[in-house]
Amino acid sequence: MAVYTEVSDEDLAAFLEGYDLGAMLSLKGIAEGVENSNFLLHTQAGFFILTLYEQRVNEAELPFFLGLMEHLSDNGITCPQPVKNRAGEALGRIAGRPAVIVTFLDGMSVKRSDATQCAMLGEALGKLHLAGNGFALTRANSLSLEGWPPLFRAAETRADEVLPGLAVTIAQELAHLQTSWPQGLPTGIIHADLFPDNVFFLAGKLSGLIDFYFACNDAFAYDLAICLNAWCFEADASFNITKGMAMINGYERVRRLEDAEVEALPVLARGAALRFLLTRLVDWLNRKEGALVRPKDPLEYLKKLRFHQRAEGARDYGLLR
Amino acid sequence: MAVYTEVSDEDLAAFLEGYDLGAMLSLKGIAEGVENSNFLLHTQAGFFILTLYEQRVNEAELPFFLGLMEHLSDNGITCPQPVKNRAGEALGRIAGRPAVIVTFLDGMSVKRSDATQCAMLGEALGKLHLAGNGFALTRANSLSLEGWPPLFRAAETRADEVLPGLAVTIAQELAHLQTSWPQGLPTGIIHADLFPDNVFFLAGKLSGLIDFYFACNDAFAYDLAICLNAWCFEADASFNITKGMAMINGYERVRRLEDAEVEALPVLARGAALRFLLTRLVDWLNRKEGALVRPKDPLEYLKKLRFHQRAEGARDYGLLR
Repeated sequence: MAVYTEVSDEDLAAFLEGYDLGAMLSLKGIAEGVENSNFLLHTQAGFFILTLYEQRVNEAELPFFLGLMEHLSDNGITCPQPVKNRAGEALGRIAGRPAVIVTFLDGMSVKRSDATQCAMLGEALGKLHLAGNGFALTRANSLSLEGWPPLFRAAETRADEVLPGLAVTIAQELAHLQTSWPQGLPTGIIHADLFPDNVFFLAGKLSGLIDFYFACNDAFAYDLAICLNAWCFEADASFNITKGMAMINGYERVRRLEDAEVEALPVLARGAALRFLLTRLVDWLNRKEGALVRPKDPLEYLKKLRFHQRAEGARDYGLLR
Repeated sequence: MAVYTEVSDEDLAAFLEGYDLGAMLSLKGIAEGVENSNFLLHTQAGFFILTLYEQRVNEAELPFFLGLMEHLSDNGITCPQPVKNRAGEALGRIAGRPAVIVTFLDGMSVKRSDATQCAMLGEALGKLHLAGNGFALTRANSLSLEGWPPLFRAAETRADEVLPGLAVTIAQELAHLQTSWPQGLPTGIIHADLFPDNVFFLAGKLSGLIDFYFACNDAFAYDLAICLNAWCFEADASFNITKGMAMINGYERVRRLEDAEVEALPVLARGAALRFLLTRLVDWLNRKEGALVRPKDPLEYLKKLRFHQRAEGARDYGLLR
């Protein structure tokens, strides 16, 4: 949840002059999205989300994200759509920041998901993987195997401030993943951050997906492993195999996992847990006094990692074949 | 800007069952209001603001605030209106907190006000003071002269962490105000927190006022002194007498200040500066790691206080009589 950059009424008025959205009526910073500043924008044309891109988002990659949202929508996925200005461009600039207006998407994210919602999420993830097919642009996953050592180096000397022994634990896990990370799995467009915050439900149905700013080309099953981490653990860090089974079954109703993906699931889950442990650790160690964002607990992902380290196969996640 | 309490979809659905607003469609935490949690709520009936009352707001006082918003609206002031549930109550409860739904008010607050906006603010303040007439409930100002010593005691021992010598400066100022605070000025309903954040403009006109949770019965001229503090200083802490003159003239177009109010303006301005210095100081010393609110700089109000200490009369604020 974040508002990093304040937008003045003058800046907004100047920006909106390029659009066919009528006069500005209201702008409120909203607590959504960790990496960018997001605002609810009301103009004479209706309600929209205004996003200002901050740290971590590379401006050169924005055409990938914005194009992907259009491509996915054209292929049956409900997600926010970039609004183009009179010059036909989705990307503009406000207060020195790249900025985009997207459509407002109704829906409520869930705080505590149940197995039914996990099943719907699995199905939506499968559809997303198929819908990404044919998208012309590609983006490497900068937060996969090759991205983890630099993150670790940024946190290594201070990791033990969070928990004694954490640096050694991470170093050992990194070494393990570097020798056992699977190659040759089916790949395509993955969301890579499909946490409950980014999934909307309405009237008991999954109604839309948001926040595609980690989307990239990578193994489909790694995306599933991220979702198992994000959705299927209880507050006490215990894995809920009923939710895992529901999610995997939901996914396979749309896209059946290949044998190699099934076999790789535990190591992919370890990698996914390490990815969020590392980014949260770096954010935690670099949190700023007075920032409007609450850093997330890195140790939540250490606990998840420990579960995955003990897992013997996909069966431990509820995949019974 | 604040979201202190998270609202689950289940809690919200249960709460909305009491209202004629149709099904919930969306809820987004918004960066508005310092004392409460605020959300933009979309239901089938439209857009609203959902407020959950947190610290500092005494539940017994909520009927005063909610009733005042209705009274002011009935008397020509544009401000959010509490939405009543099917039982005819404006006040409900969600996630253990008192909660209210109010109407969504369009408008943009300004970051850097100009003299024209200060004039409009002065006029709106005068209208507010007249519109409060006849409101049946009263509320003492807990953050005036009698409220400052307890605030100071809460901060005294650590005040010098913010600036060496600050505790002595505040003690001396308190002693001065206790002997010179004016009595017998015209009183009525005042807003008591009419900062630029709480004033909306649309198409070059002042379009509405929000956030009445500090409103109380006190001297009208003290409210004007708060606004002079909040609107008429530049970023370098210099007082802009053009803005001051515009605000006071705007106010007097609606309600002429009495001689005693004119004479009291400098000491009221000192008191107003001390009030925000003290509350900001307490908030600063008690800021929590990870809170979603950026504590405001107490020293901004020390600089303003120093200006007021040197002021010789209302003339120094632009009041030329």
